Amino acid sequence: MCSPEVAKAVQDRIAREGRPALSRRNFLKLGGAAAAGLAVAQLGLTARRAAARSSEGALPAVIDLSYVYATSVPTYTPGEEPARSTVVTVQDNGFYIQKWELFEHSGTHMDFPAHFIADGTTVDNYDASLLVGPSVVIDIKAKAAENADAMLEAADIEAWEAANGEIPDGAIVLMNSGWGQYWNDVAAFRNADAGGVMHFPGFSGEAIQWLLDNRNINGIGVDTLSLDPGNSATFDAHYTILGAEKYGLENVANLDELAAHPGALVVVGVNRWEAGSGGPGRVLALVL
Amino acid sequence: MCSPEVAKAVQDRIAREGRPALSRRNFLKLGGAAAAGLAVAQLGLTARRAAARSSEGALPAVIDLSYVYATSVPTYTPGEEPARSTVVTVQDNGFYIQKWELFEHSGTHMDFPAHFIADGTTVDNYDASLLVGPSVVIDIKAKAAENADAMLEAADIEAWEAANGEIPDGAIVLMNSGWGQYWNDVAAFRNADAGGVMHFPGFSGEAIQWLLDNRNINGIGVDTLSLDPGNSATFDAHYTILGAEKYGLENVANLDELAAHPGALVVVGVNRWEAGSGGPGRVLALVL
Repeated sequence: MCSPEVAKAVQDRIAREGRPALSRRNFLKLGGAAAAGLAVAQLGLTARRAAARSSEGALPAVIDLSYVYATSVPTYTPGEEPARSTVVTVQDNGFYIQKWELFEHSGTHMDFPAHFIADGTTVDNYDASLLVGPSVVIDIKAKAAENADAMLEAADIEAWEAANGEIPDGAIVLMNSGWGQYWNDVAAFRNADAGGVMHFPGFSGEAIQWLLDNRNINGIGVDTLSLDPGNSATFDAHYTILGAEKYGLENVANLDELAAHPGALVVVGVNRWEAGSGGPGRVLALVL
Repeated sequence: MCSPEVAKAVQDRIAREGRPALSRRNFLKLGGAAAAGLAVAQLGLTARRAAARSSEGALPAVIDLSYVYATSVPTYTPGEEPARSTVVTVQDNGFYIQKWELFEHSGTHMDFPAHFIADGTTVDNYDASLLVGPSVVIDIKAKAAENADAMLEAADIEAWEAANGEIPDGAIVLMNSGWGQYWNDVAAFRNADAGGVMHFPGFSGEAIQWLLDNRNINGIGVDTLSLDPGNSATFDAHYTILGAEKYGLENVANLDELAAHPGALVVVGVNRWEAGSGGPGRVLALVL
């Protein structure tokens, strides 16, 4: 909402009544008895929530697998960083709104079949029930630390299963290469050589084919810019997963934390982009 | 990814190898023994998934509470519809990407405290654990059918509790006014009169204050364009919920279906917009 009429109504209200409710920061600035009374009430709620979470039927803990969707994010193709501008502000207009320009494959985002497959399903038409599934985090940090071109191979999946049991139906299988440590350093995260070829880990096409042949997964994900390793020119991982009408997540955050909670339920909260080839969204894991 | 180098690599691969995996539609076009063999394998997977979902430890059913994020969506302010353009296509470039221009308050989206409160929390810094909570759907369809300016009042909440028990901690309290029936008709959904004033239902500020005083909710939501009724000039609902550092969801879909599953877990998958006043995202409900 940012029409002149709305802005005027909001400004008039502020002039007439002031703010009808305290923000958290203003609350913290208050002193005296009124604040003390409010503080007791607020602490009561906090205690009540904590009790609810620690009892039977508690709300799940939540692990945030999305990075901030920022103008500074590393991108596969330089120039595809999102841009934002301020449309109106609380100070000048009574309320605050930003406008965004973005490419679908930026930030923590999803690749859907239509990204590589001419008649593949787009985001808006994809079965929402497949956006939820148990997490499987496969750690290849040791070999990725030695070789930036390392791939998650079928042998890594078999080793994971030997230690953890069979990958469950509906799983979202995530590569944890340790690459998240470079997220805030665009050059290190892209790791391009003098010829412009990037070097970071990804899935091998064979590993994905093994999952498709032997297990019933919902999708895959990586902590890097691409499902394929950065130096791939053939995009085997993309073709294999998207060609099977499944999806891939890129730039997934906090995989060490997720790995500590096996079987956490991953919810792929991709905005329902019309005709979308994929796109940014919120990925949350629920520890139930 | 849409650099010329990438496009060339993908086109070269297509020329050299053809598509490495079948899309669903191509699969359906196949005939003969190979297709029959594939069909058996595919049916096997489908049966396996169905079995998994109906047994103990099954994956949750998912209710999609987001509309398609389309260029045709109704908006509070005309001119704030999202726009999309095609950057590259599979046919011409080997892969498909769109670019978007959007305002944060369009489609199924969220209002965060910073939308109305100068020092309120933005999307990127909001506690992710508060984005998940049990659904409470309060039906005001009868009075909304008689009066488009109807409000969800404290009495409606008390009546809901008399029938259903106390609103649980962490709840996301959703107004079901029946307005979703007009979603695909922009004029009917906005329902503006000759003077440009819109008429659709919303929360009263008093109802939200009742929830803040008496229950420990995470947020609220509506099946209309605004938390306040369309004819509001004072935005009591916005100020009350956002001033309490909580959030509101607008244009929430499929509330009749959600109401049939009391206590379904709502996951507010808002993209983690940097400095965001709110923004579009995927809202899913899990029937656990």
